[in-house]
Amino acid sequence: MLTCVGTRCRPIATCGRLLTRTFTSSYPKPYVVPKGIAGENRAARLELAAAYRGLDLLGLNEGVSNHLSVIAPRQNGDGEVMLVFREGLHWKEVTASNLLGLDMSGKTVEGEGSPDITASCIHLAVHQKRPDTKVIMHTHQPYISALAALEDCELRLVHQNSIRFWNRVAYDVNYGGVAFSFEEGERLAGLLGDKDVLIMGNHGVMVVAPTISMAFEMLYFLERAAMVQVKAMSTQRRIREISEEVCKFVAPEYMKRAQNYADTLYYSIYRELQRTQPDFEK
Amino acid sequence: MLTCVGTRCRPIATCGRLLTRTFTSSYPKPYVVPKGIAGENRAARLELAAAYRGLDLLGLNEGVSNHLSVIAPRQNGDGEVMLVFREGLHWKEVTASNLLGLDMSGKTVEGEGSPDITASCIHLAVHQKRPDTKVIMHTHQPYISALAALEDCELRLVHQNSIRFWNRVAYDVNYGGVAFSFEEGERLAGLLGDKDVLIMGNHGVMVVAPTISMAFEMLYFLERAAMVQVKAMSTQRRIREISEEVCKFVAPEYMKRAQNYADTLYYSIYRELQRTQPDFEK
Amino acid sequence: MLTCVGTRCRPIATCGRLLTRTFTSSYPKPYVVPKGIAGENRAARLELAAAYRGLDLLGLNEGVSNHLSVIAPRQNGDGEVMLVFREGLHWKEVTASNLLGLDMSGKTVEGEGSPDITASCIHLAVHQKRPDTKVIMHTHQPYISALAALEDCELRLVHQNSIRFWNRVAYDVNYGGVAFSFEEGERLAGLLGDKDVLIMGNHGVMVVAPTISMAFEMLYFLERAAMVQVKAMSTQRRIREISEEVCKFVAPEYMKRAQNYADTLYYSIYRELQRTQPDFEK
Amino acid sequence: MLTCVGTRCRPIATCGRLLTRTFTSSYPKPYVVPKGIAGENRAARLELAAAYRGLDLLGLNEGVSNHLSVIAPRQNGDGEVMLVFREGLHWKEVTASNLLGLDMSGKTVEGEGSPDITASCIHLAVHQKRPDTKVIMHTHQPYISALAALEDCELRLVHQNSIRFWNRVAYDVNYGGVAFSFEEGERLAGLLGDKDVLIMGNHGVMVVAPTISMAFEMLYFLERAAMVQVKAMSTQRRIREISEEVCKFVAPEYMKRAQNYADTLYYSIYRELQRTQPDFEK
Repeated sequence: MLTCVGTRCRPIATCGRLLTRTFTSSYPKPYVVPKGIAGENRAARLELAAAYRGLDLLGLNEGVSNHLSVIAPRQNGDGEVMLVFREGLHWKEVTASNLLGLDMSGKTVEGEGSPDITASCIHLAVHQKRPDTKVIMHTHQPYISALAALEDCELRLVHQNSIRFWNRVAYDVNYGGVAFSFEEGERLAGLLGDKDVLIMGNHGVMVVAPTISMAFEMLYFLERAAMVQVKAMSTQRRIREISEEVCKFVAPEYMKRAQNYADTLYYSIYRELQRTQPDFEK
Repeated sequence: MLTCVGTRCRPIATCGRLLTRTFTSSYPKPYVVPKGIAGENRAARLELAAAYRGLDLLGLNEGVSNHLSVIAPRQNGDGEVMLVFREGLHWKEVTASNLLGLDMSGKTVEGEGSPDITASCIHLAVHQKRPDTKVIMHTHQPYISALAALEDCELRLVHQNSIRFWNRVAYDVNYGGVAFSFEEGERLAGLLGDKDVLIMGNHGVMVVAPTISMAFEMLYFLERAAMVQVKAMSTQRRIREISEEVCKFVAPEYMKRAQNYADTLYYSIYRELQRTQPDFEK
Repeated sequence: MLTCVGTRCRPIATCGRLLTRTFTSSYPKPYVVPKGIAGENRAARLELAAAYRGLDLLGLNEGVSNHLSVIAPRQNGDGEVMLVFREGLHWKEVTASNLLGLDMSGKTVEGEGSPDITASCIHLAVHQKRPDTKVIMHTHQPYISALAALEDCELRLVHQNSIRFWNRVAYDVNYGGVAFSFEEGERLAGLLGDKDVLIMGNHGVMVVAPTISMAFEMLYFLERAAMVQVKAMSTQRRIREISEEVCKFVAPEYMKRAQNYADTLYYSIYRELQRTQPDFEK
Repeated sequence: MLTCVGTRCRPIATCGRLLTRTFTSSYPKPYVVPKGIAGENRAARLELAAAYRGLDLLGLNEGVSNHLSVIAPRQNGDGEVMLVFREGLHWKEVTASNLLGLDMSGKTVEGEGSPDITASCIHLAVHQKRPDTKVIMHTHQPYISALAALEDCELRLVHQNSIRFWNRVAYDVNYGGVAFSFEEGERLAGLLGDKDVLIMGNHGVMVVAPTISMAFEMLYFLERAAMVQVKAMSTQRRIREISEEVCKFVAPEYMKRAQNYADTLYYSIYRELQRTQPDFEK
């Protein structure tokens, strides 16, 4: 069903920066930022901080491990930075202003401290190989991790939520260890190819997206889809899968509205955080 | 056991409006509304807002997806409206006054904004085909969704809670995609027939009821019944089902008291919301 | 392992009131009551209210269903009452003073309102047949309910927690419907015999005990034991059971300390309720 | 994969006190204590209290059962004490100052009251046999308990989190009853040998470590690893295990950073407790 394991790694030269929007969907934003570069950096920080807090709220993080990053214009206008949280913080402690900005060599150029080394290794490499995306999120969320522990770790089309991922998932079935090198990031980017999701065998999941809301929404629905699949399989009964014909029709219809759906979900969580733990906007 | 898959779709002409009560059970209401049409509209809004918040509290919603609706007298006395929440809100954000009222063509005539298109498509069509009911609730609740992912997605009579659904469940085993048309609503209403519950294969569940408390109680006990079934099946041991004879005796006894049981459960949650998040009554 | 299905129903005449203590373990109580009958009634009310709230806190209740009861001296000194919560309340709403006192015919003699009919039917009948106990608790807690949905619903000796129930569990495998008669209570009491626990097939569980803390502790550890059993069975691997020899040695040692263990657990929850929802003592 | 069942019990004479650091990792501590012996005792109390509260927060405790202990310098400078919580408290009620200090014979020399007898029996014996460790934690956490109920209770290498335990787990497959004797502690220490983890069949788990953060982190990741294993096995599909070759490479790399990872996780929970239940530092 789902196309498997990174045989379609698109050469960087040919993909270009397909998606350039910087948080400009029509959905009303629950925050205000100044116009210009500094405002865009601030918006990216607000949204990334809310993503850390929101995924913690939904139980999709694992302790202080794993990372979320976004490419944003640098505050001083000089090129771009990759924003990521500082090693040593809990996701509950992330705020817009304590996020670090790294330049493309991995050097901290905004904020003080350093990120976990695996964040630099993987995220920078993937951002480089997939310039069409701006956001990378990697988690060990429970049901995806259970699925990733199976020999056949394919996400099956068992629920309406699964269709959204039809033809968008790549698989890594050769877990090779914790990433301490840029090469591991390049290997993962190669496996990801032009997909949005990499299910990492014996490990977890990585998603890439042009917006924070879209990456957030993918993690949420991946976990829901995997939950339904794992619970259904646990009954010992045969599962029923949605046919290719239906997917061919439904998936493109869904994707037309995907950014809107993603905004609706993500910003509702954003507003909940504003009500219950507003310090994340600091 | 349970009769299967919409072969008994009742012709509209013959069913009439069997149930006409508008929130008038004997259970003491935890709110006060003015007498007359405006008060009935207000009561429907209070109860529907509490249903959105209450199902969120119980973990039966999925992000901002899915919908609950009720038919109520229009505030200005001119016919009826279908109340439903506005697209873009989280269920935690629904209040009595921010619910939208749609006329039977799907036009917003109370409030501003528009609902998700699938809400209009499905709910209006089902309300039209089942004028004996006033309330429709549709969710992707976890255990029902797991059950709905099986080839044989029948709700088995494994628990006292299951008996309440004996002979009241229809099944849709031909998932055809996200509903973007009135016809899909009509198809679902056809499958539902004169049942109260439609388990939607690879999708979720829809319940219809004459009162909000009854629909709410059905979703709660459907999830409990499916949880017991899925957990029991996961053990690899044979399940034990309650016999038809017992169901024939117990189900009607239960149904005599069903509205009372539903009120007891639903209004207890309503009061909890009044204590913990009273702004829903705004 | 565990002796099965009520074949040892002890004749009423021979059992007598074996256990007469009224909340007098050595564990320091977290409340003060006046000396004498009124104080004993008050203590029973405080403890039963905390049991309703505490089981809700632990997720062992199901909506507003199910009942907990205790036999206590009547406030006015005239015999005994069975305390139970009023129909229509959530377990979160129970307080010491809104509990009802029923006389042995089921008539409300303390407080106003009436309990659910099944509470009177079952609890009064069991209290009558088992005068050695003072407390009855009945729930539909999740893992016990899953176990109770299996043909072979025996609680297996898979964990240290399970040993505590060795030779103390009876089974009802003939679910006959919701209890609307005193006879159903008598049937259940018959199956229970001289055990402490009745696992009710396709239904849930009932425990009896001389103290509230003991019944509370049994429900907690029954759920933990069933959780381990169901999760272990779900892996498809063979479970390992503790031998009879170990049980023969360990169970009596445990039972010597059981009241102390029960007090330690129950009163710790009682104190948590005092800190977080102190109105239950009203 | 994982070496099995205590056949490698290291003679006490040859192991020595390999690890002597007393809470001195480079990670910034979220508390301040005086210099000297009294400060070290205070630091151990703060950290142990946070461990009780933190494991409760994460759902890894079971009622008031189980124990965590640490060896610390005695407040008055006269040798060492084993700190452990007082019988009768909930883990939520533990504070730095209400912890008991026991001398090596099990006599309470700091604070008033006594610990559960099983704490003295097991913990003192293990501390004595493993002087290279300072911290012992024993729990009945859910997924490890489910695993421990299987005939083959081996922790499989199904996830990156599992690698951290490669060659560090011993197994006790001969559950012999609740520990009421020092000998049982010695038996467990013998099975543990020079490993860090003892999975106790039909019972739970015990971990030993030189620091509180390390023991805490092990319990957390053991539960995550077991959760992935149990959920994966529940699907009836074949699991995929990480190869020995990868483990040989990755595990030592991980262990170089293990104390740092442990600090990052543990102190983030410590800070959360400071924000939400600061009385634990009393």
